[in-house]
Amino acid sequence: MPKSKAYISSAGFTSIGDQWDKSIIDLAVEASRKALKGSPKIKPQQIIVGNMFSAVGASQEHLGALVTSALGLSGVPAYKVEAACSSGGTAFNVGYSLVGSGAIDSALVVGVEKMRDLEPEQVSLALAMAESAEYTQFVGATFAALNGLLARYYMEQMNVSRDELSSIPVLDHTNAVTAEHAQFRRAITPEVVSRSSMIADPLRLFDCAPVGDGASAVVLTNDTAAASSKGKLARVLGGAVATTEFSMYERKDMLDFRATRDAFGQALERAAVPRSKLDLVEVHDAFSVVGALSLEAMGFSKRGMGSKDASQGKYSRDGELPINTFGGLKARGHPVGATGLYQIAEAYLQVTGQAGKNQIDGAEFAATQNIGGVDTTSAVHVFGRAA
Amino acid sequence: MPKSKAYISSAGFTSIGDQWDKSIIDLAVEASRKALKGSPKIKPQQIIVGNMFSAVGASQEHLGALVTSALGLSGVPAYKVEAACSSGGTAFNVGYSLVGSGAIDSALVVGVEKMRDLEPEQVSLALAMAESAEYTQFVGATFAALNGLLARYYMEQMNVSRDELSSIPVLDHTNAVTAEHAQFRRAITPEVVSRSSMIADPLRLFDCAPVGDGASAVVLTNDTAAASSKGKLARVLGGAVATTEFSMYERKDMLDFRATRDAFGQALERAAVPRSKLDLVEVHDAFSVVGALSLEAMGFSKRGMGSKDASQGKYSRDGELPINTFGGLKARGHPVGATGLYQIAEAYLQVTGQAGKNQIDGAEFAATQNIGGVDTTSAVHVFGRAA
Repeated sequence: MPKSKAYISSAGFTSIGDQWDKSIIDLAVEASRKALKGSPKIKPQQIIVGNMFSAVGASQEHLGALVTSALGLSGVPAYKVEAACSSGGTAFNVGYSLVGSGAIDSALVVGVEKMRDLEPEQVSLALAMAESAEYTQFVGATFAALNGLLARYYMEQMNVSRDELSSIPVLDHTNAVTAEHAQFRRAITPEVVSRSSMIADPLRLFDCAPVGDGASAVVLTNDTAAASSKGKLARVLGGAVATTEFSMYERKDMLDFRATRDAFGQALERAAVPRSKLDLVEVHDAFSVVGALSLEAMGFSKRGMGSKDASQGKYSRDGELPINTFGGLKARGHPVGATGLYQIAEAYLQVTGQAGKNQIDGAEFAATQNIGGVDTTSAVHVFGRAA
Repeated sequence: MPKSKAYISSAGFTSIGDQWDKSIIDLAVEASRKALKGSPKIKPQQIIVGNMFSAVGASQEHLGALVTSALGLSGVPAYKVEAACSSGGTAFNVGYSLVGSGAIDSALVVGVEKMRDLEPEQVSLALAMAESAEYTQFVGATFAALNGLLARYYMEQMNVSRDELSSIPVLDHTNAVTAEHAQFRRAITPEVVSRSSMIADPLRLFDCAPVGDGASAVVLTNDTAAASSKGKLARVLGGAVATTEFSMYERKDMLDFRATRDAFGQALERAAVPRSKLDLVEVHDAFSVVGALSLEAMGFSKRGMGSKDASQGKYSRDGELPINTFGGLKARGHPVGATGLYQIAEAYLQVTGQAGKNQIDGAEFAATQNIGGVDTTSAVHVFGRAA
């Protein structure tokens, strides 16, 4: 794994939501240009695009060369990395591994997804491609349905109440109010969640991350001299991608998010940062239950206590460990292949003191956790303020 | 770029053609198992899947974790790399860069495509995703149509005859007769090409690579001790991926395959192998004209002379520089995302003396060239017999 130092020198992203007037390429280019503008002395040696379903969402593959050409950077090696909803975090991991090992000196990693051009049922089909076509899709289970089953099991086994389950969505919406790029910038109460329409029992509309268009990009470098603004460098301290048994029904314990547990453990070890040092974590709460189980897998909450701890304020902005500081997947939004890079850009802003109204005071260390499938793939990275 | 030594220690692939009884996962697993069996002491630290259109071909994304889980290797980091028809070569380049730089010590790289489950027009739509949805696809140009325009222009500008253009397909079919995994194992004459049905004027059926299912895999390692059978190691001497202006109509000279020229030049330089030392080259002849222009871009033929030289026997198995030693894209077959890894597996077999009836005597150095789009992305690698 990476032996030299790797840094994020700049980040850029679009706002998330309905972007009818922009194509998937427009979005990727907008985020990339913003990121590149922040590192004018760095010419990326590779361009890596994180994306899940441009084929069905935009009738487009070959995004790597297309984004590169549109940026006027023809010649630069480019490709897409896909790992379902963890495409963004995994694409970043590839770039980080290449830059950190010295295989290359710099990279632009951009995540993008165009979801709003699709009808809702098409989005469901696209997301279901994170699960096996031969088994899970074949029986008609949507991704929301699988997570509904998981939520029911979690609530029953762990004695989690409806309002407790709502605590992470409520927290997300609170944090998003001041986040300019967030899709939903209004605070909600547990009552809003429990009165929202049923999606997949017991999951309601406000348990589920929304459908939106967006793109987020970061510039990676191992050359601190080339990075223009020294005060704005974040160090990538460690990272890991892990997988587990593909579908949740194949696992011994559905409530144990093993991919996240493994990736988080490896990333912390490589970063040599104890868990207690983390000042904030960006958590992959595609569904409320997924956020809770993620917090448990990373050891912040005891088994069964993820939502309960959140309901007690542990993960709020002024709590013991702030999470989803710009609103997380539920309120900032979840443009699938871009989500991991939104998390990483937000962690970058936090540890470099550029998070504005969403700044966590004195944030020095941050982690991001990005899941594909029902924790089938997990990409975790740890960032620190550059010395 | 890679600083330590990287080797291929084994390869495995399926035959190419109609594989109605096998899913995309079955194919990837079959090739992967064969490759892993050849390197029993190596546990891959990453699994990288090269694939272009599993979403539209098999309603499946998240191939990385799915293949990994099906192989019983859950836990191992895994993801898909996509760069249109160069997905296989580009996935290999990512693995090679990670292993060669010491970021990881070993990787399994597997390319797979399932094309025969689709109707012909669906295949056309899938392949067209290598080109821009907003421009090229929008005007209704298929991938064959674009290459037809290119072929007409090439023939006119360079005074290339119908029979000269047929020389690479004829060469491919000759070489495939003894290749067990090839899709079409029978020799043809130029007359067969010129009498075959018109696909996109002037390109006829036998100018075009076929539609087929297949998967190919290699094991990469930087640990020669762990590789079980020392005599069967091939060294990866160098490699590069390059891009160019996205669509051919954006380029100053459509007949200059700049991505291939750049990638080939960089790969040779990194390998420190002069072009004259190469004993064979696997060329991306998705269409006859593309094979000819590729040979010109790599400097083996002068401008306009690619097909003409082939018609004089220069690239035949007993010629000056054998190409497509197992039949190339036209006769071995072109299961899109797998093609680059078939080329690499074939180069591995050649430089390790395991190519059987297709062996090029004394082959010491080999190159592979894998294109995405109309030479929009090109991935080139150079291999050598391990000392």
